[in-house]
Amino acid sequence: MSHDHNGTSLEEFRKYREKMNHKILEQGNLQIKRFFNLDSQAYEDGALPKKTKELLGLVSSMVLRCDDCITYHIIQCADVGVTDPEFFEAFNIGLVVGGSIVIPHLRRAVETLEECRTATGMKKETSPVRSR
Amino acid sequence: MSHDHNGTSLEEFRKYREKMNHKILEQGNLQIKRFFNLDSQAYEDGALPKKTKELLGLVSSMVLRCDDCITYHIIQCADVGVTDPEFFEAFNIGLVVGGSIVIPHLRRAVETLEECRTATGMKKETSPVRSR
Amino acid sequence: MSHDHNGTSLEEFRKYREKMNHKILEQGNLQIKRFFNLDSQAYEDGALPKKTKELLGLVSSMVLRCDDCITYHIIQCADVGVTDPEFFEAFNIGLVVGGSIVIPHLRRAVETLEECRTATGMKKETSPVRSR
Amino acid sequence: MSHDHNGTSLEEFRKYREKMNHKILEQGNLQIKRFFNLDSQAYEDGALPKKTKELLGLVSSMVLRCDDCITYHIIQCADVGVTDPEFFEAFNIGLVVGGSIVIPHLRRAVETLEECRTATGMKKETSPVRSR
Amino acid sequence: MSHDHNGTSLEEFRKYREKMNHKILEQGNLQIKRFFNLDSQAYEDGALPKKTKELLGLVSSMVLRCDDCITYHIIQCADVGVTDPEFFEAFNIGLVVGGSIVIPHLRRAVETLEECRTATGMKKETSPVRSR
Amino acid sequence: MSHDHNGTSLEEFRKYREKMNHKILEQGNLQIKRFFNLDSQAYEDGALPKKTKELLGLVSSMVLRCDDCITYHIIQCADVGVTDPEFFEAFNIGLVVGGSIVIPHLRRAVETLEECRTATGMKKETSPVRSR
Repeated sequence: MSHDHNGTSLEEFRKYREKMNHKILEQGNLQIKRFFNLDSQAYEDGALPKKTKELLGLVSSMVLRCDDCITYHIIQCADVGVTDPEFFEAFNIGLVVGGSIVIPHLRRAVETLEECRTATGMKKETSPVRSR
Repeated sequence: MSHDHNGTSLEEFRKYREKMNHKILEQGNLQIKRFFNLDSQAYEDGALPKKTKELLGLVSSMVLRCDDCITYHIIQCADVGVTDPEFFEAFNIGLVVGGSIVIPHLRRAVETLEECRTATGMKKETSPVRSR
Repeated sequence: MSHDHNGTSLEEFRKYREKMNHKILEQGNLQIKRFFNLDSQAYEDGALPKKTKELLGLVSSMVLRCDDCITYHIIQCADVGVTDPEFFEAFNIGLVVGGSIVIPHLRRAVETLEECRTATGMKKETSPVRSR
Repeated sequence: MSHDHNGTSLEEFRKYREKMNHKILEQGNLQIKRFFNLDSQAYEDGALPKKTKELLGLVSSMVLRCDDCITYHIIQCADVGVTDPEFFEAFNIGLVVGGSIVIPHLRRAVETLEECRTATGMKKETSPVRSR
Repeated sequence: MSHDHNGTSLEEFRKYREKMNHKILEQGNLQIKRFFNLDSQAYEDGALPKKTKELLGLVSSMVLRCDDCITYHIIQCADVGVTDPEFFEAFNIGLVVGGSIVIPHLRRAVETLEECRTATGMKKETSPVRSR
Repeated sequence: MSHDHNGTSLEEFRKYREKMNHKILEQGNLQIKRFFNLDSQAYEDGALPKKTKELLGLVSSMVLRCDDCITYHIIQCADVGVTDPEFFEAFNIGLVVGGSIVIPHLRRAVETLEECRTATGMKKETSPVRSR
């Protein structure tokens, strides 16, 4: 049983994503390019910190049930120091809001999180420094 | 062309599901554990029989278009004796309510049903005993 | 706070529905007319009884969060003798599968059910005769 | 029984929409402003004519079941000369793709279309001039 | 043009919600009662602060397009000190993730936020104390 | 990283689709058969040309995020002469209406379009003859 990004490592996920984004953007539709820019900017530090915003992206992706989006935001969240207890509280909100239909995505999310932790060689059990 | 649970047998589907559920539940978020309990209890015999409830789970999964959930409820429905004509009437409701966007999931559902019937070595064409 | 069919009685809901269906069907698009026929036929007695099918329609409508569809299937379910405990078990499945996002629709569904019971002057607490 | 824009005329719909869009845009979040711009630009004449694009907006809104979006695109479609038979063929696609859950929105869409035709004092039964 | 909670004040929204929740819980289905408990607990302070969790609830509700849920989480967010710039950054994420189909809900959300600010007689423009 | 129809060529996609549709239709549920007929008929030339209708099917499939449906309508659109600029304007509408959650499907759609162009040995950069 496998992921949407299955049979593939997180590294392959990143490469496919990058390759296809490049094709989309080089093809010349200016509005699509602008949409992609808005999408990146939405998660930058502002009145709300990037960490909160990535969590918003993660839980939105869970309730809308998009594995690739979940994978992407898990990677981003792990990068900015989201701990395992924080992840699972966010997962719980996704589950309660979105219902049991979210469970198969939760299973794959937990596998993805494990892959992230393995890739970076750390298991974040404690809170990261607040200043991030 | 393949399933979400593709390149994998129903047995592999069950194993992955069980393995990941175990990981989710052992990680210690009590609320997620309670949600999983509620999810199991929802389909037990009560004022409505388990068979009706599994059909409710199946058609809900179809209109929400979740292959893993459909696979799970097909297995459960087959276990409690849902016949092929009953399955297809339920599929039809999923199709009419949810629209043609459901069709790719219906194709995979029919393949899953076939695998179930093969696994149990029986083709249920007639109504099961009512007392179930 | 009100319903989609709010400020209106169930009777007004029925009238609006009938008036607009009539306009849709008289306008001459044959395929829409055929779709409406398929929609009606999907809930008729067959391998599965009408009662089960109306419950399938109800729970599908809950997880897809359509108040008018929920109202329609509650009326139909009440007509074929679904009891309150049966309704709430079906509601529970809609809630567990679809998540807390279903709750506002559940509130309106419970109000609709109350209106139905008042309209028919009976509170069904016990199981209807099985032979329905 | 009523519309989302119910108890209100199309004129009131337009006024509320305009008033709130103004409030959203004046509040100073630059990215939201850019999103609104992208949204407007998406329907302008290009490789595909505006008429086709508004129909794409209409049917997308139907399958996603958003009454306000449907109302908006019906107004736009009527403005660029979509005829009644064209509207109903588009409605049919929305119905087939999205399923019977779309029907309550179709009823309101047909009422909205009627209001549009009344407002402009014409019933378009024939194809508009192609040069639009 | 109006809200789902339209023609009604926020106060009426709260009353209807409370009245119907009471009816749902008193009717005796234990699993629904447990679901409601899980729903409340999901937003309590934990590894993630309540403020972050309410924002997760808000943005999830936006992308799933449920006006009542949006209204509820705006009230909660305002209670725990979410500022206007924070609200609009969260709204922006809901908009980018969920698309233009979210816009009608954004319009109503902004109106709801205004009502909240009026009700509490304060316009939060600056960051609340971090210790919340 | 792969497609839903991944590890498989477009030819395999067609074969699986055809094989399973055949199984569904031969199993004898008349209503499902009628639904499939309605689904085919919805895209035939009428008041709106087939090309417009296939684009409606494509964008509906994007906002509902069904890869198989997107693949199917890309093949159909390419067959009736939709050019690359037309495709990307339609993709842009799907993206703006449906939001960033559509992006993973857009990546796969662009890969599918490439496969279609390779299969037919032509890159359509210019408008097809209008008379189609």
